[in-house]
Amino acid sequence: MSDERIWTAAVLVIGDEILSGRTQDKNVAQIATWLDVQGIRLREVRIVPDDEAEIGDALNALRARYDYVFTTGGIGPTHDDITVDAVAKALKVAVVIHPEARAILDRYYTTRGGLTEARLRMARVPDGAELIPNRMSGAPGIRLGNLFLMAGVPHITAGMLDALTGTLEGGAPLVAHTIGAWAPESEIADVLRAAERDHAGVAIGSYPFFREGRTGANFVIRSTDGAAVAACVAALTVAIEAAGYAVTDGGI
Amino acid sequence: MSDERIWTAAVLVIGDEILSGRTQDKNVAQIATWLDVQGIRLREVRIVPDDEAEIGDALNALRARYDYVFTTGGIGPTHDDITVDAVAKALKVAVVIHPEARAILDRYYTTRGGLTEARLRMARVPDGAELIPNRMSGAPGIRLGNLFLMAGVPHITAGMLDALTGTLEGGAPLVAHTIGAWAPESEIADVLRAAERDHAGVAIGSYPFFREGRTGANFVIRSTDGAAVAACVAALTVAIEAAGYAVTDGGI
Repeated sequence: MSDERIWTAAVLVIGDEILSGRTQDKNVAQIATWLDVQGIRLREVRIVPDDEAEIGDALNALRARYDYVFTTGGIGPTHDDITVDAVAKALKVAVVIHPEARAILDRYYTTRGGLTEARLRMARVPDGAELIPNRMSGAPGIRLGNLFLMAGVPHITAGMLDALTGTLEGGAPLVAHTIGAWAPESEIADVLRAAERDHAGVAIGSYPFFREGRTGANFVIRSTDGAAVAACVAALTVAIEAAGYAVTDGGI
Repeated sequence: MSDERIWTAAVLVIGDEILSGRTQDKNVAQIATWLDVQGIRLREVRIVPDDEAEIGDALNALRARYDYVFTTGGIGPTHDDITVDAVAKALKVAVVIHPEARAILDRYYTTRGGLTEARLRMARVPDGAELIPNRMSGAPGIRLGNLFLMAGVPHITAGMLDALTGTLEGGAPLVAHTIGAWAPESEIADVLRAAERDHAGVAIGSYPFFREGRTGANFVIRSTDGAAVAACVAALTVAIEAAGYAVTDGGI
């Protein structure tokens, strides 16, 4: 297990609307969940403003560290959609009109008022890019090797992820098992620490909550080794019950 | 307006649970909204795993660039709560037990099973820190100059923000006005570009949506200069209506 290659990814969220608090980001969670199924670990997220230099600096920092980088936002037709230009500049390549993207947009807008200059902006890609199909709207996503430029609108990004499913090399997916107890996590802290120490390669996360006037916590046991997860879950369940709390398999 | 000092902030989210997709982050949006009222711009967010080196590197990068840095997560009583240690290491200070935090926890846990060793972990702070009161649970947040260590659980962070309201120096808040239209943003793109160009110091964001089977977009006009926002909104409304679309003030 420990010899296995771990594939890693980062997400770069491009969006003044997230930083202003106006919009609640939903793409990080959906990309994270999707990556998990592909056997790829999301290791870092950055959210930056709609600013060419900020986007470029963050992109280059993330590209240097992770196997895959996904950006979200800024690939639409309006003046504040600057992702393609920022990425091309960071990669030191030209921006070109992708002929297939142009053809797709041309078809899509035939019955929708025609391919205006603004709409044609969505056919602009960094030189050398491929397209990521988008069944939800005309505009495709953009792939450049291990870099993926996705939409900001979550259901469009969902469609693009769907088109990429199974096409990215990954490793063994992380196995995660959740158990929960109506216990203050501070009463279980020693038990958790011991369980993590006793099970090599297993990480335990403790997530407290306050619900229905009571304190509880969920514990997520993670590893690429399913047997190690099962053994840790079993040991932890016994230990929490010994501390006087019922354990709910699957979490509360 | 342009001579005015802009105060900036970053948020560092510490959380395997966010990167795994298990938990939807809610702290970024609430901190962003709160900062806006304080006249402080949220300029960057990073989400990193529960890893001491990753936390330290990100913290030092953000501290160097922004006036204020807020972290969320990892200040509880369990083994995976490593924020205090990571921050102390990054700042090259010792970790100490804060006497006031110890007293608060002692009082809080008197009727809740006593101050165990695990719970005492929540009194540990980087040397030199002050406390941020937390009415929701015993454990306080931690302030070190312009660095704020907040909880991961959103309603606890909300209480800590409340305690900080009005205590941080900021500048003029950004004025934002939203208008909306049932129009594809690609048909309004030229109008938006012209409006932004004609109104110095104003930024216009375009946020498309697909609802009730129809395409629309909201446009957010932002500036620290309220009069400039009003002028831009008026001009943009006229221009969108001239393009054949009704404008809804306040957004759709």
